[in-house]
Amino acid sequence: MIDLTKMMHPKSIVIIGASPKPDSVGNELIKRATQANFNGQIFAVNPKYDEVEGVPCYPSVSNIPSVVDVAIIATPAKTVLGVIQECAAAKINNVIIISSGFKETGAEGQAMENAIAEFAEKNNINVIGPNCLGVINNADNVRFNGCFAPIQAVKGNIGFATQSGALASGIINLLPTLKIGLAQMVSLGNQCQINALDIMEMWEQDDEIKQILMYIESIPNTAKFREIATRVSKKKPILIIKSGRSARGAKASVSHTGSLAGDDTTATGLFASSGVIRELYLRDLFNTAQVFSKCNIPKGDRLAIVTNAGGPGILATDTANDYSIPLADLTDATKEKLRAVLPPQASINNPVDVIASATAEQYEQAASILLDAKEVDILLVIYLYIAGKNDIKISQHLEELKKKHPNKPIVSVFMTTPEYDSDVLDVIPDYNIPTFRFVVDAVHGIARLVERMKYLAIKDDTVPTLKVDRARAQSILDNAKAQGITQLTTMQSLQIFDAYGLPLPKFGVAQSLKDAKDIANQIGYPIVLKLSSKTVTHKTDIGGVITNIKSEDELGFWWNRLVDRLNKANLVETLDGIVVMQQVSGANRELVAGVVKKGDVHQMMFGLGGIFVEALKEVTFRPCPLTTQNARDMINATKAKNIMGFVRGGMATDLKVVEETLLRLSQLVGDFPEISEIDANPLMIDDKGRLLVVDARIVI
Amino acid sequence: MIDLTKMMHPKSIVIIGASPKPDSVGNELIKRATQANFNGQIFAVNPKYDEVEGVPCYPSVSNIPSVVDVAIIATPAKTVLGVIQECAAAKINNVIIISSGFKETGAEGQAMENAIAEFAEKNNINVIGPNCLGVINNADNVRFNGCFAPIQAVKGNIGFATQSGALASGIINLLPTLKIGLAQMVSLGNQCQINALDIMEMWEQDDEIKQILMYIESIPNTAKFREIATRVSKKKPILIIKSGRSARGAKASVSHTGSLAGDDTTATGLFASSGVIRELYLRDLFNTAQVFSKCNIPKGDRLAIVTNAGGPGILATDTANDYSIPLADLTDATKEKLRAVLPPQASINNPVDVIASATAEQYEQAASILLDAKEVDILLVIYLYIAGKNDIKISQHLEELKKKHPNKPIVSVFMTTPEYDSDVLDVIPDYNIPTFRFVVDAVHGIARLVERMKYLAIKDDTVPTLKVDRARAQSILDNAKAQGITQLTTMQSLQIFDAYGLPLPKFGVAQSLKDAKDIANQIGYPIVLKLSSKTVTHKTDIGGVITNIKSEDELGFWWNRLVDRLNKANLVETLDGIVVMQQVSGANRELVAGVVKKGDVHQMMFGLGGIFVEALKEVTFRPCPLTTQNARDMINATKAKNIMGFVRGGMATDLKVVEETLLRLSQLVGDFPEISEIDANPLMIDDKGRLLVVDARIVI
Repeated sequence: MIDLTKMMHPKSIVIIGASPKPDSVGNELIKRATQANFNGQIFAVNPKYDEVEGVPCYPSVSNIPSVVDVAIIATPAKTVLGVIQECAAAKINNVIIISSGFKETGAEGQAMENAIAEFAEKNNINVIGPNCLGVINNADNVRFNGCFAPIQAVKGNIGFATQSGALASGIINLLPTLKIGLAQMVSLGNQCQINALDIMEMWEQDDEIKQILMYIESIPNTAKFREIATRVSKKKPILIIKSGRSARGAKASVSHTGSLAGDDTTATGLFASSGVIRELYLRDLFNTAQVFSKCNIPKGDRLAIVTNAGGPGILATDTANDYSIPLADLTDATKEKLRAVLPPQASINNPVDVIASATAEQYEQAASILLDAKEVDILLVIYLYIAGKNDIKISQHLEELKKKHPNKPIVSVFMTTPEYDSDVLDVIPDYNIPTFRFVVDAVHGIARLVERMKYLAIKDDTVPTLKVDRARAQSILDNAKAQGITQLTTMQSLQIFDAYGLPLPKFGVAQSLKDAKDIANQIGYPIVLKLSSKTVTHKTDIGGVITNIKSEDELGFWWNRLVDRLNKANLVETLDGIVVMQQVSGANRELVAGVVKKGDVHQMMFGLGGIFVEALKEVTFRPCPLTTQNARDMINATKAKNIMGFVRGGMATDLKVVEETLLRLSQLVGDFPEISEIDANPLMIDDKGRLLVVDARIVI
Repeated sequence: MIDLTKMMHPKSIVIIGASPKPDSVGNELIKRATQANFNGQIFAVNPKYDEVEGVPCYPSVSNIPSVVDVAIIATPAKTVLGVIQECAAAKINNVIIISSGFKETGAEGQAMENAIAEFAEKNNINVIGPNCLGVINNADNVRFNGCFAPIQAVKGNIGFATQSGALASGIINLLPTLKIGLAQMVSLGNQCQINALDIMEMWEQDDEIKQILMYIESIPNTAKFREIATRVSKKKPILIIKSGRSARGAKASVSHTGSLAGDDTTATGLFASSGVIRELYLRDLFNTAQVFSKCNIPKGDRLAIVTNAGGPGILATDTANDYSIPLADLTDATKEKLRAVLPPQASINNPVDVIASATAEQYEQAASILLDAKEVDILLVIYLYIAGKNDIKISQHLEELKKKHPNKPIVSVFMTTPEYDSDVLDVIPDYNIPTFRFVVDAVHGIARLVERMKYLAIKDDTVPTLKVDRARAQSILDNAKAQGITQLTTMQSLQIFDAYGLPLPKFGVAQSLKDAKDIANQIGYPIVLKLSSKTVTHKTDIGGVITNIKSEDELGFWWNRLVDRLNKANLVETLDGIVVMQQVSGANRELVAGVVKKGDVHQMMFGLGGIFVEALKEVTFRPCPLTTQNARDMINATKAKNIMGFVRGGMATDLKVVEETLLRLSQLVGDFPEISEIDANPLMIDDKGRLLVVDARIVI
């Protein structure tokens, strides 16, 4: 881990390329740094000036009389390497390169950037950027603004890192509106050295940061991301927007799994398995952030709503339902207490409608009763300024109630005039109740609190080691490799599945009709015949699968026909046998599981199978190795869960078997990283609820 | 249609129950009315005062010396009928009852409300309310504020009607933030007489109203709603929030269709078939409203994006993709023009990135080039205030460009400091470019523009009359009724389907094995046997369906077994035959269609069938009779569309046949309104792409 303490908590900084020219980056940088009331010394470097904006200015860092912790460089790209060399000579170990004109401009820029990274690495210099907005640390004892956003950022408890510097600037403009503040901001720029994961690890250790927000456009290292994010997300929430979702990422592939594994689909799985909350839209990101900024994690998910208007109460009920947040069932005792303080026209059911005439005191009493109630975990307070005067006493009461009930989140929707908020802040400068204009934004944030509560409740989640016959799988793979096969035959694939304990129908491999009859007699009719060939990848395409063979006579007929077809297609030589498999009966529920290797990481897929795989796209991905919880999450992630229970004409599946099937596939690719693709498709559920892998494909 | 001209455009009003007591409803009403600078005379009625807030006050309306157009009543519930009687005597034909304490409080209140409605009806008095906030008409020549919301509503071109009065008050508070204004507002209250549909018809005729927004909790009359909304939505957009979505509405039912037809599901279909844009959340409603307020409908859906920051450009691309808005493919000519005015680091592909240093002039040039381009229909302008100064010249340029390109919507996302907006309004008071903080809100509004463009492009959509054998269906139904059957047998149902030209496999009905063999020989093997019984509703439950019978021998065997089963179950008497049907081969794609009657309206269902019907809930509803376009919409509304094209192992279905199947079912229930439920399930697609109704159920 890179030590960035000095980078973010400097005692002295220098702005190289400082300028008195209004609106220039070099001018904005020095203004922001001084206006932030930096708790340390600020120097400027520019050979043209003695001072800039009241800051002493030197021709070069070598002229600065004292040690400098951080250099902020805003000189033309071509000069930057030289500047950093001077920094090295002056023992400056932390540099932030604001300048653009590097990798983002093409090969020449890339070369300059590489040279900088190389020099920095050799000389133990930490580099943020280039091509970035800079950094901010709003901590009271630091007050370091090393960026050129046009205004100071509101202070708060959020660490915000972004691959788009301009976006940081835009967000800083909106912070008052969004009712959030930043503890630190890091504009990542081109990440020639320090990247998003370094920042994540830095913030893991920093108590000023209560939550980590990131805007990223790429994930450099899936495995490392998962390792770090999984650890950090146990300590504080990580909310991420990853853009470029619409880019086409899936490559041509022989397997269903491969063809469905778009880059963004697998990113979703990576975030889910790492405890990262992925938001799709900035609006949602900052709504969630406001709630996390101001609320602790609740103990449960039961929501009570108090409102002074019926309509918004119904809307809140609808929205809670959309987000699967249950409304608290109020006990008779709670209702009696409400009845005692509210007017007769009030509704004492949840949502509690204190009606339009409610006073601040009635709001306080209703809210207090609901927060005291054991059946309530979270409180949503809706207040519409209807008549008379805005009454900021309601906010004051909520702030007091929050202190009494720190672990029962209070979230508010206030449809008040714009002045209300500033009136509240005049009286309670550190007002700490999340406040929204619309119910949906509040409920979105509440849903994320609940999601995090559930995530933190998962204990001792590990990658299990299941009993498998690894040696047998090894020998099948060795054998295939010896034959130069990369796409395993049906027989080989099924045998490897069998070695790894996957739920298969009874089957055997026949080299002759006699073999086939013997196997069929052992298994019992009806049976299925499947061609197992070294070259035919889609065996159904050449009629290589015959189902529902009910007798020895039929077996003889179809065996001969299959051999005829092979002869005609000139494929006999490639045959390594014909699989004789028990016919699965009463199975009209089809799932799919599979694995595809992307980069160094195997991605597991699970979802609805059959002809619906591509048409419905009800599949989910997670990176391997799967933990037990990952497998459970996959089972619940798509509508596939709806066909695993009891359905017309079929019994419920044992979800433990589904879970184990995924874990066994994960263990298989963990043991044999040379496997690039697996399809376990279809994965049938028969009428008795038994899960059976009916066909197998493995590519190495 | 009720004439509400005087109600909304009065020359004189009286507030009955006016009061000098601060914060009372009677005081707020008179203050709002006077503060609005009403273009007419205001009177007050209260026996205690001579004047209230400077308005002449009388003991009763009978004392007012001149004619009054509208009475606003805010006296206690029990006095209201008497007050209205006085109004009638004083020839006041329009009353707005603010007072609460009616239907919403129980039986006694309901009785008072009924008495008022009855009296009003007899005396030709129009009544808005009771239990409402009042009304507003912001027209320059009216300036009528007859409500007690605490502040004046910003003027605009929206008609807003709401079943929640408090909500109107909340929204009025937020109008400046939401950047929209109201032309008129009507708080519907209990709708004892005038309801949402009356208001819709009133606004249909009013040129000041450019769009109609409604918050409703119920739809009183489905058929009338559809008739009026379909007509009005052709003239101006109707945006509706209907709350109570999470209420459980579906009743126990023998058919799949019936069990899936929840009240809210059918409301969605009603809105879709009436051209109404349904929003789920207030936030989205007002985002859409802002765009409709300020933009004309585009000619196409191709979006160009101009931005000064890469990140938000990528986010906008993702979001446009989420909303199925295509990005314009810029021509080389357009790109050359952009290259000529933008710096070399700018990206001239869509999204066009003018980079952080862009001046207002460069923005103007880029926007102008894109608006001139034939390949661009809509422009999204993203501006992040990054460094230097907020530059409102960008807004000025956009406003000018809008005038040049009135039919190419310009929508903006400005991540600026809060002062920016007020700075713009200082210079351009009627600034008319929709402005959002976040891309997703802008794109949501753009998507609605595109939706409306497509809706308006549908010409001559009618309910077709297809050739059917109505007489035959009539005789089958008469026959069933004569037998006292309400749930038609399989045979009867299939025969009615046949009479209405639905695509059925070949079939016949056998009374004996000999019949069956004859039919089977005509059809050709394999065949299916289906029990047709007057009492057995789920024939599969008693093994009454035998599939894949391949020969006459097998037919004999199964016929006898079926008869045995019937004998054992004591069901022979209820039999009206055994259906012999062609076995549909290669059909693993299952759809479902059906109809259920809710109230007076038949609701058509269509979607994914088979065991997935309930598990996946990929079904959609529309009220009958279906227009051709309704049927097309249903085909495209769910993921069912993904299995109707070419899929692995199956050819594409002729969508015309699917469309006609739905239209024929619609015609069937139109001809025979006594039909309460139909299931055409499954609706199979075979490997050749043929659509076939494999089973039928009709309930009368």
